[in-house]
Amino acid sequence: MSKKFKIPSATIGRLSMYSRYLKDADNKGIVTVSSRNIAEATGVTPAQVRKDLAYFGEFGTRGVGYNSRELYNYIMKILGLDRSWPVAVIGAGNLGRALCHYKGFAERGFNICCVFDNDPNKIGEKFADVEVFPMSALEEKVKVHNIKLGIIAVPASSAQEAADNMIKARINGIINFAPINVIVNENILLRRVDLAAQLEYLTYSLEDN
Amino acid sequence: MSKKFKIPSATIGRLSMYSRYLKDADNKGIVTVSSRNIAEATGVTPAQVRKDLAYFGEFGTRGVGYNSRELYNYIMKILGLDRSWPVAVIGAGNLGRALCHYKGFAERGFNICCVFDNDPNKIGEKFADVEVFPMSALEEKVKVHNIKLGIIAVPASSAQEAADNMIKARINGIINFAPINVIVNENILLRRVDLAAQLEYLTYSLEDN
Repeated sequence: MSKKFKIPSATIGRLSMYSRYLKDADNKGIVTVSSRNIAEATGVTPAQVRKDLAYFGEFGTRGVGYNSRELYNYIMKILGLDRSWPVAVIGAGNLGRALCHYKGFAERGFNICCVFDNDPNKIGEKFADVEVFPMSALEEKVKVHNIKLGIIAVPASSAQEAADNMIKARINGIINFAPINVIVNENILLRRVDLAAQLEYLTYSLEDN
Repeated sequence: MSKKFKIPSATIGRLSMYSRYLKDADNKGIVTVSSRNIAEATGVTPAQVRKDLAYFGEFGTRGVGYNSRELYNYIMKILGLDRSWPVAVIGAGNLGRALCHYKGFAERGFNICCVFDNDPNKIGEKFADVEVFPMSALEEKVKVHNIKLGIIAVPASSAQEAADNMIKARINGIINFAPINVIVNENILLRRVDLAAQLEYLTYSLEDN
């Protein structure tokens, strides 16, 4: 599948939402869905659904709709989710522990396989079957498990170091939960998840009430 | 400040990013910044910065730029962050605990003031000074603290019940971390934070490597 052209990141986010709806529809035995069904379930316009899908080719049958399972499988392939992904978590604190217990990863093929921490008291602990290893084991574990994705779950003061260590170990996709920007080379994929910013989408609107 | 016209939610997200950069610039003693400075620091185009700000009026001086502190204060006001917001967390599990310890909330004025759980063993526990109360205390605590924001940090199977309870207690802005959609009335502000979807922005691009 050619993905050399630039797809807006908002489209990727919506494809992710569409795929969850399609999975759900398929599970309920709904064979065919329209762009309007998808739109209503995910809070966008039908035109947006069609535009997002058009980046990747022709789908569905005019006047009939899309086959739920086929479109689901196709979107999962676009998103790189037709396989499973081992994930490393840096930081065996509360957030690292919560991520290991989070049920939403496995159902999308993400498998947290190791947690890393510098605190000797935490080494060997298990969070939902995921073992905590010393940071010094990162490079070897990344190699053994072929890990390409890592999550920064350390305090702000250690976030850059965590990123640097992951990159040295050849992890090239990083999610940063620490409330600080980390700086990486442009060939590294980095996404910061700012939990406070999520609340700000609400306060903006609440202020008007 | 009139916010009756519809602002795209992506603009709100970017204003949040701009404000963090402006705060940082002001802390560093940088008095004036250009739209290009803001754009470079936040990964958007200067035209986008100007367009986002134009929703709210005229800012800055042509050829000079914006006063960092003034623009910061103005954006914080737009976002409803010129005050502090008490926040309730439903669920005293790993995620609830991690949220109470998360340092990024306080610096934006979010103050988790109570956690609620049904598990009698958890009642009275403290996560970083935040006490765990029984669900039955929710309504009273919301009233006492004037809480308008709540976070769902329970497993998927209890998420809808958590939302229903918050709404009954008159919380009208909800962040849902559970990996499931909850259904609420249209007068309730709801935002789902899907942690797996964050990883999917990366896998889409990694697949191409």
